[in-house]
Amino acid sequence: MKVGVLGAGQLGRMMALAGYRLGLELHFYTDAPDSSAAQVAPCVCAPLNDAARLEEFASGLDAITYEFENVPVATARRLAALNRRFMPPPPVLEMAQDRLTQKRFLASLGIPTPLFISVETRDELDRGLALTGFPAVLKTRRWGYDGRGQDVLREPADASQAWEWAAGSPLVLEAFVDFDREVSLVAARGLTGETVFYPLTHNVHQDGILRLSLAPAPHCTPLLQQMAEDHASRIFDALHYAGVLTIEFFERRGTLLVNEMASRVHNSGHWTIDGAETSQFENHLRAICSLPLGSPSPRGASAMVNFIGTVPEVRSLLEIPGLHVHLYGKSARPGRKLGHGTLCATSIETSRTSLERLLELAGCLEHIKAAV
Amino acid sequence: MKVGVLGAGQLGRMMALAGYRLGLELHFYTDAPDSSAAQVAPCVCAPLNDAARLEEFASGLDAITYEFENVPVATARRLAALNRRFMPPPPVLEMAQDRLTQKRFLASLGIPTPLFISVETRDELDRGLALTGFPAVLKTRRWGYDGRGQDVLREPADASQAWEWAAGSPLVLEAFVDFDREVSLVAARGLTGETVFYPLTHNVHQDGILRLSLAPAPHCTPLLQQMAEDHASRIFDALHYAGVLTIEFFERRGTLLVNEMASRVHNSGHWTIDGAETSQFENHLRAICSLPLGSPSPRGASAMVNFIGTVPEVRSLLEIPGLHVHLYGKSARPGRKLGHGTLCATSIETSRTSLERLLELAGCLEHIKAAV
Repeated sequence: MKVGVLGAGQLGRMMALAGYRLGLELHFYTDAPDSSAAQVAPCVCAPLNDAARLEEFASGLDAITYEFENVPVATARRLAALNRRFMPPPPVLEMAQDRLTQKRFLASLGIPTPLFISVETRDELDRGLALTGFPAVLKTRRWGYDGRGQDVLREPADASQAWEWAAGSPLVLEAFVDFDREVSLVAARGLTGETVFYPLTHNVHQDGILRLSLAPAPHCTPLLQQMAEDHASRIFDALHYAGVLTIEFFERRGTLLVNEMASRVHNSGHWTIDGAETSQFENHLRAICSLPLGSPSPRGASAMVNFIGTVPEVRSLLEIPGLHVHLYGKSARPGRKLGHGTLCATSIETSRTSLERLLELAGCLEHIKAAV
Repeated sequence: MKVGVLGAGQLGRMMALAGYRLGLELHFYTDAPDSSAAQVAPCVCAPLNDAARLEEFASGLDAITYEFENVPVATARRLAALNRRFMPPPPVLEMAQDRLTQKRFLASLGIPTPLFISVETRDELDRGLALTGFPAVLKTRRWGYDGRGQDVLREPADASQAWEWAAGSPLVLEAFVDFDREVSLVAARGLTGETVFYPLTHNVHQDGILRLSLAPAPHCTPLLQQMAEDHASRIFDALHYAGVLTIEFFERRGTLLVNEMASRVHNSGHWTIDGAETSQFENHLRAICSLPLGSPSPRGASAMVNFIGTVPEVRSLLEIPGLHVHLYGKSARPGRKLGHGTLCATSIETSRTSLERLLELAGCLEHIKAAV
């Protein structure tokens, strides 16, 4: 079977490596030159709105998917018209690209989120702040990821500056959640409605970028897992979804509030390559190819650490006992995700020494120690 | 780093997938069109003795290796002259290509093999049979794999027919070993002399082709493992070896006799992709790239089953809980290795039901039940 993928970053690269194991052919389409997935699979480099190139790309593909959410919705609709296995379905992309639409959709399904208010005028901002109180988080509705496009307002005086920063973009104001921790759920649904749910993952961010994932999230109750799965199931059913869906939650006093969702494989699911029976990448491909989904069961306890901006010396990484190293073939640039390492052991405690060394090499030991 | 690989079959394909994880570039060179690795990495298709193409291929590579033993020795020497990281070293290829040279080398290191006798004349065959008795195994010295190029002589009357079959090839006659089971050791040595040894694997063949591997080999004593590692160490040191080495043994009453060795990654090590901390493919690349070797520790008990001649229906395979499926993108042909599946569990017993289903789909349940 031939699968087309829009976008060709590291998520696409890891999807290709998972697909090759199953004997699938992967074909990428991106508007970015020198991309990570293009090093391991055939890749068309053309604008994402070039109808002729897209049609040519789609011809002969058994399924089409994407590995980043900023695929133009018109492009998604065009491809979905050419191939009924364009998945996840185009409407979810519109939600992925608009924080307000996404939150309204979640609210319509009865899925709890932080209090949110649409803000288009300065007056609406002030009225919103009266509801949320301080701190509050002002976010652009569109094009935000890895902590970009948002600002925390700590006191009334911050409102003016934030308003200038936002510079006329449509906005959403959210109540600041004093969460206990951030967790995410990676789930997959097949074209036939079959679902699998990975265990909740505990995520630690730095400057808005994921640094560490622990999976299964320590001290996670079956009830919390069940709540997360119920939320995912409702989203799946509402959208006639196929593929992997990731939901990021704030956990607070035993409850979950959705921070955001991503209609794709996700950084917080990278541990599944080495730490689960079936990786999120393989399950995404199985789902959109109408193949049976694989077991999401964890293989022990995993800790995944991102390499951001620079890759630690590879020799030192490979000296860490039992570390599974993944490098994306990307050039170094501040804030860029260049690779990750995953430790798998019978328990987090077993791999504590290795994990500290890994965090030290990745340059975030102090941050993580302070955060966890 | 850029690694060149001679040969582009499924071993090369799996090596590429392991290399990509580490951010390596893999380049293949083969004389066979439509090869498995060419689907996942750049591949030159040219004769293996084309000096100009080989030189062009070698330029800019950090290391060169091979994934099949029938690389012409002259080609290996030419490439080794161009790149000091041509590994495993050329002399081991000569041994791989000549059963007699290989057995003499092993004997020179004090490593036990079945009794063997060089046979070039009919008279030598008869004198040899007087030493080995019956049954005995007559093998061509060159170009034998997967059970080809050999014949079992069960009684004196078989000698004439075997002699005709051999048709003037240089031969080696071996005493038939009434072994308890066949086991193999996959080991790796780095350029700096560092070594790692995977646990012994129990292998079951059918018509000379590997069908099932169980790893770690059940009921294997530490003494047996140590004997196997000692043999491998002696071979490593004698050859200034870098890369993966596989030794196939006959186990008989608690001792090991070498059946043959392969200077490459090996089918009996496929379980390491899913069932060991570091796969044989990754450790081979680490070894020849002068990177630290990874842990060979098993992750539970693995059972690997080959798909030979035809691939079972993929849907049925993927329905087996916890099965790791690997397909090579090759067209079906009798006797051809097209893929494999690996089950990993806390013990072989835990995965017995899944294993029986897997063997049934692979068409070898009856054979394996009779053999184990």
